[in-house]
Amino acid sequence: MKYPNSNKVYVQPKTSTANRGMSLEEDINKSNRYYLTNDIAVIHKKPTPITIVTVDYPRRSAAKITEAYFKLPSTTDYNGIYLGKYIDFEAKECDSKISFPFSSIHAHQIKHLSDVIRHGAIAFIILRMTSYDKDFLIKADQFIDFFNSTDRKSLPYAWIEKNGFLIPYGYGKPCDYLSVVEKVYNLQGEL
Amino acid sequence: MKYPNSNKVYVQPKTSTANRGMSLEEDINKSNRYYLTNDIAVIHKKPTPITIVTVDYPRRSAAKITEAYFKLPSTTDYNGIYLGKYIDFEAKECDSKISFPFSSIHAHQIKHLSDVIRHGAIAFIILRMTSYDKDFLIKADQFIDFFNSTDRKSLPYAWIEKNGFLIPYGYGKPCDYLSVVEKVYNLQGEL
Repeated sequence: MKYPNSNKVYVQPKTSTANRGMSLEEDINKSNRYYLTNDIAVIHKKPTPITIVTVDYPRRSAAKITEAYFKLPSTTDYNGIYLGKYIDFEAKECDSKISFPFSSIHAHQIKHLSDVIRHGAIAFIILRMTSYDKDFLIKADQFIDFFNSTDRKSLPYAWIEKNGFLIPYGYGKPCDYLSVVEKVYNLQGEL
Repeated sequence: MKYPNSNKVYVQPKTSTANRGMSLEEDINKSNRYYLTNDIAVIHKKPTPITIVTVDYPRRSAAKITEAYFKLPSTTDYNGIYLGKYIDFEAKECDSKISFPFSSIHAHQIKHLSDVIRHGAIAFIILRMTSYDKDFLIKADQFIDFFNSTDRKSLPYAWIEKNGFLIPYGYGKPCDYLSVVEKVYNLQGEL
């Protein structure tokens, strides 16, 4: 496995994922708290977008939403700053052994990833392949290139293994994706 | 009025605000759509953070949230990327003629602004002083310095006029804050 545009060989970290938490979202949130507490990066999950229809005010202190609906997200779920760089990514779990369906990522989100890349972002997708108990970082530009050049409806696992970067489990940071970002994007930092 | 750390005199733009929309949030959202459509920047408002308690599924297609509560935001409302830089800001309207109360900004948000500045962000507050029909950009570091060095409970209007930068109204961008960001932070770009 190689770095894109470089001759450096990427060594897959030796790691056990036995200590990972329940969901990818929880593991990323926990890792983000670790990064924040240790002053490594400021990256947050955005709240779930919702259309609020009715709000009741049973007490002055507590407004209660009694009718609301989920909205389709127009951006990715996570963004923030790391080593002065704007970071933007989407995270997905996939239980297929064969491939990751493109239908899991909305067209709006693919457009958003293209947009931020054009403006200089570090943008990627974190993919948890639950059947293999592996988390991969996939560069968004590579993902989009493949998406645009194929008639397939999904990203084959062989492609993911070849082009993705395995994300290690770290103490306090069960999905330590920034250690991969630092290497893959050749950033200077201390983790 | 001067740039901080520079000898350049900042010339307040001559502008009429007669065409501004109803709320600051709407005006910023409209400006952000203009920036996105014209490929100038990718900046979005984050969804309102909510704790969801109960969801009904009356039909398979439409999940209906029937009990939810507003949460205190732990970050600011807006972030994104402009000229390769991570941008982060909070926007507030104030109808006082005298001062902007610090209680309008949560302690979490001030901590968040400090955090992102330390990691290299361009961070600020957009303050609409409705009594004067003026929008100001206030650098978050200056705001925090003043906040930490005073016993006052609010930011005096005289301070805002002296240290803030007036945000012009632009066609299609009723709160054209990026034109100010470009000058105040000495960025290279075309607007």
